[in-house]
Amino acid sequence: MLSTNTRCTVTVMPDEAEIECSRGDNLLEALHRAEVEIKSLCGGAGTCGSCRVIVESGQARTDDGDVISEGDDPLACRTEVTADLQLHVPEESRRAEGEVSADEPRHVLGTVRPDREVPVDPVCQVTPVKLTPPSLADNTSDFDRTCRALREVTGREAFSASHSVLRGMAGSLRENDWESTALWVDLQTHGELIDLLSPEAAGEAYGLAVDIGTTTVVADLVDLRNGESLGRAGEYNEQQRCGEDVISRINFASQKDNGIQILKEAVTGTINRLIEQLVREAGVCERGIRAVVCAGNTTMIHTLYGLDPNNIRRQPYIPTVGTVPPLRAAEIELNTDPDARVFSLPAVGSFVGGDIVAGALSSRLTEREEMTLLVDIGTNGEIVLAAGGSLLACSASAGPAFEGGGISCGTRAVPGAVERFRIAPGGDDVTYRTIGGQPAVGVCGTGLIDLLDSLLQAGVINRSGRFNTELESDRLREADEGYEYVLVPGDETRDGADLTIETADIRNLIRSKAAIYAGIRMLLTNLALDEDAVGRILIAGGFGTHINLDAAVSIGLFPDIERDRFQFVGNSALRGARQALIDRDSMRDAQELARGMTYLELSADEQAAAFMDEFVAAEFLPHTEMERFPSAAPGDTSAL
Amino acid sequence: MLSTNTRCTVTVMPDEAEIECSRGDNLLEALHRAEVEIKSLCGGAGTCGSCRVIVESGQARTDDGDVISEGDDPLACRTEVTADLQLHVPEESRRAEGEVSADEPRHVLGTVRPDREVPVDPVCQVTPVKLTPPSLADNTSDFDRTCRALREVTGREAFSASHSVLRGMAGSLRENDWESTALWVDLQTHGELIDLLSPEAAGEAYGLAVDIGTTTVVADLVDLRNGESLGRAGEYNEQQRCGEDVISRINFASQKDNGIQILKEAVTGTINRLIEQLVREAGVCERGIRAVVCAGNTTMIHTLYGLDPNNIRRQPYIPTVGTVPPLRAAEIELNTDPDARVFSLPAVGSFVGGDIVAGALSSRLTEREEMTLLVDIGTNGEIVLAAGGSLLACSASAGPAFEGGGISCGTRAVPGAVERFRIAPGGDDVTYRTIGGQPAVGVCGTGLIDLLDSLLQAGVINRSGRFNTELESDRLREADEGYEYVLVPGDETRDGADLTIETADIRNLIRSKAAIYAGIRMLLTNLALDEDAVGRILIAGGFGTHINLDAAVSIGLFPDIERDRFQFVGNSALRGARQALIDRDSMRDAQELARGMTYLELSADEQAAAFMDEFVAAEFLPHTEMERFPSAAPGDTSAL
Repeated sequence: MLSTNTRCTVTVMPDEAEIECSRGDNLLEALHRAEVEIKSLCGGAGTCGSCRVIVESGQARTDDGDVISEGDDPLACRTEVTADLQLHVPEESRRAEGEVSADEPRHVLGTVRPDREVPVDPVCQVTPVKLTPPSLADNTSDFDRTCRALREVTGREAFSASHSVLRGMAGSLRENDWESTALWVDLQTHGELIDLLSPEAAGEAYGLAVDIGTTTVVADLVDLRNGESLGRAGEYNEQQRCGEDVISRINFASQKDNGIQILKEAVTGTINRLIEQLVREAGVCERGIRAVVCAGNTTMIHTLYGLDPNNIRRQPYIPTVGTVPPLRAAEIELNTDPDARVFSLPAVGSFVGGDIVAGALSSRLTEREEMTLLVDIGTNGEIVLAAGGSLLACSASAGPAFEGGGISCGTRAVPGAVERFRIAPGGDDVTYRTIGGQPAVGVCGTGLIDLLDSLLQAGVINRSGRFNTELESDRLREADEGYEYVLVPGDETRDGADLTIETADIRNLIRSKAAIYAGIRMLLTNLALDEDAVGRILIAGGFGTHINLDAAVSIGLFPDIERDRFQFVGNSALRGARQALIDRDSMRDAQELARGMTYLELSADEQAAAFMDEFVAAEFLPHTEMERFPSAAPGDTSAL
Repeated sequence: MLSTNTRCTVTVMPDEAEIECSRGDNLLEALHRAEVEIKSLCGGAGTCGSCRVIVESGQARTDDGDVISEGDDPLACRTEVTADLQLHVPEESRRAEGEVSADEPRHVLGTVRPDREVPVDPVCQVTPVKLTPPSLADNTSDFDRTCRALREVTGREAFSASHSVLRGMAGSLRENDWESTALWVDLQTHGELIDLLSPEAAGEAYGLAVDIGTTTVVADLVDLRNGESLGRAGEYNEQQRCGEDVISRINFASQKDNGIQILKEAVTGTINRLIEQLVREAGVCERGIRAVVCAGNTTMIHTLYGLDPNNIRRQPYIPTVGTVPPLRAAEIELNTDPDARVFSLPAVGSFVGGDIVAGALSSRLTEREEMTLLVDIGTNGEIVLAAGGSLLACSASAGPAFEGGGISCGTRAVPGAVERFRIAPGGDDVTYRTIGGQPAVGVCGTGLIDLLDSLLQAGVINRSGRFNTELESDRLREADEGYEYVLVPGDETRDGADLTIETADIRNLIRSKAAIYAGIRMLLTNLALDEDAVGRILIAGGFGTHINLDAAVSIGLFPDIERDRFQFVGNSALRGARQALIDRDSMRDAQELARGMTYLELSADEQAAAFMDEFVAAEFLPHTEMERFPSAAPGDTSAL
């Protein structure tokens, strides 16, 4: 019997959830057990910093033995529960998947809850077959006999087999007394048999869904028999050392010796580390992974397969693959069953990739009756408009501003990044919040949107983005080139220097939001529609889920429609990959969806002038046509 | 201008063909040029001994400089023409293919004449495609664009692509200005693109047809664009060092460490040497070989793919593969384009292999209106009966007697092997002919048939195969076990010892011929037919082509029907492989043919007793029911 003092209660705010623990429990595992949605990109390895929590009261201990107390912000994965504890799980540590809005079925794709909504009919099928034992009168070969049984069970006509399954077939069938579990990959044109297992070993059938982001790679390990999640892991894409964005990766590929191979090895190395972690934690074997489905932008997919991405950035922007023939895992050196097939969701074009198709798939864009926009903001703003079952997509070069790139005070969403601003009229009084409550290191994407709106509302800048030089505030001062505004004084920043924003930064931010809004407008005007027609806007990606919507509309990033028509869909790319993995109809649907999606190339002759007009009109806060943004607070319109 | 003394004339007997040569010409090449059908299994390397000729008059020179004159029997490939020459090309040096009888189109598959009868529509298709160059308005990916063009040209819907063609695709399409020659393998369920060539380089599309015999491997190199032969080469199967027949190979596979791998490497090593020779002689590149089609018995095919053949010889005799999924050349380490597919003609059972199916294909068995028997005599006598479009096959264990195995005086068809006998009544006077006119070393299969008949006709043995001990001839003498008969006295043999035949040898020969005849009878009686119903008997294989038909009928090996209903079809397996290689309809037909062929397992309960009855009845010369062989010469029937 446990002595009473080994039990502790962890109270999670703002959820007010109470979790009963034993002393010595790992905090992250306790939170997972209680289904508190908390990020764990590195799967609890203590490396990604995504599971940071803030201690409000009580005590705990790091796994190095250091005491943690009120005000500390440890990583949950490195924390041992030692006593009653109240902690706060900040917004930045919440899982994006937790924020799917309530009117859509709530997919929880974490490590603890199976995803039971999607029927399980995976791309690698797990089919029990009972063969008629051979006799002198029925001397059909092992392979033909197996195919015959598979045909009867599945209704599929044509089967091929991998070399390794052929080599083991005679022994396997006889050892298992002609009763086996056949693993076969549905290649649409035919099935490829890749393993024959004993009925008892039938568990050795796993699948991997991978979201290959330019920055982060996240993978789900799934049991193909029942679709249950066996774990999720994430890691920074090792390709980052080859450049921050897709264009710099493409340059790397074409300019460095062996650049394509280096990029390929970086991304497959990342995936292989995720596999290693996932199989270790799930207690299964790498060779049990029989199918891999990847969603990624077109450049990521090219580098995964070792294909030259160079034509992606050269007019007329033609990738080598849109539809990707599923290659064998051994061919691209993924550490799974060598005969596992690596599928990738199809791309529509060089800048509307399989990640967007995956998002459209998991968001059921083609099934929605109301007109819907799917917006994924990254270096490119990828936007899909679904109207009456047809899909129109474009990619607007937003630049890396919202990822913290090209902005003097910009940073990624790391601890210490400012994520919220409030500036009182006059510009003197600034309040802000950093991730993890740590000393400020910069402003992340969500913070920049908040900031731009706050500067405008406080009258620090005008609707053209220019500083109000008549402002009587010490925060506004002349700099080397024009003016700068002090966001956080040096005594509150990590490096001791003032955190400031300059005219050029504001210009970049406005250009970014203008590009995305102009992209949305282009899709609408191409269908002769107006913003009002849009019934729903889906915001995809981890970045999107923390946006202050009012601020985003106020600066003119998104159309000014009712806020409840917005919906955060989180990592819809990973969800789409997972859906295609465990449901082969969805894999087919994705092909259809990509084929049916019309790609509007904004730099094409027919579109370029109109896009430029839309872009220029949007280079204003919120827009030169103020009537488009009725909810935007009145402000200084002098620049008009 | 050539001086007159550099010209010489080679007269070839018994053809009486005259060939104009220059001094120094290689004799084999000169014979090929003149389309004299002469074997060249090693392709002129001087190693196989198959191109031996006999000099009747004139002079020549070995390539070592030795003088060759009347009575010499040099290898044509090692002989330089130096003067007018008359030579004899003996039966054993004639190409089997030359002996296809006149009522069937004459396929000459040698090194000089293209095979124009078969339409060229190969399993690896060579398709010129002209792509619409991409534009901003048509931004389809390279791969999808190529598939689109292929669909338009070929009418086929589904295409996959190899990893290597994807890697080179962007560069290749652009370098060739969107005009390419696509090489794609027809996998029936879909096409697999394996290379994109510039229009000029389109010649790099070759195919290889291979007859994998237990003893000999023969390969044809073919230009896939036009079906023309680029060369033929043959070599002993390196597996011979692992055992003489299929059963000993299977034993080797199961008893030796790594036995399966050793067998695989032996046969692929043999094929790779043939490839090396063929591409060197044709002046092409190994990687230009895009498809390989093999015909072989079931054990050979298993060893080629590295599959355990062990179950082939264990009741109920179930092979791993009947239909063989086409694997990539790289997977079984053939030195061709790594993406080339290696097809094998399907087997019907463990002892009716793809070689027989290939023979049935190239002999057009299913199309024949008259009832036809196809007989291939090897260690097993494989027999197919075609009646009204349906095919019934069996395999009778003939044993290796007709290959010279298990017979004290037996040998393979090597120089010095006795191939013809004539024995005068009384048994004292024996005349014989050896291959190449060399001192006798043994008796080959054709010689053994002649011998058995001669012994019977001369009264040396009776119809039970027992020696006539009352014979007054010195040639018949007592030996350790029973009697022996001297065929060739020691002063005429190579090793100086008498060449003799013993009672046990005769028993073995009779058992062999009885097994084959019983197999033929089983097929006929299963369809309630008699020998008279057989319109044609096709004799396949190199062995068959030299048989003295009258002798073969006289001993009861073949049914006693009109001799002009027999037809020698030579290496019908290689011809079938070649046909499937250059005509994909034939590849499909072969699958159909194998599926439609009924295999009569003679050891199955329902057949075993009947087969034993037929076998016992046939253990007589020619048969216990003499009325079945009206043309057999009357002889001693005392043993009945």
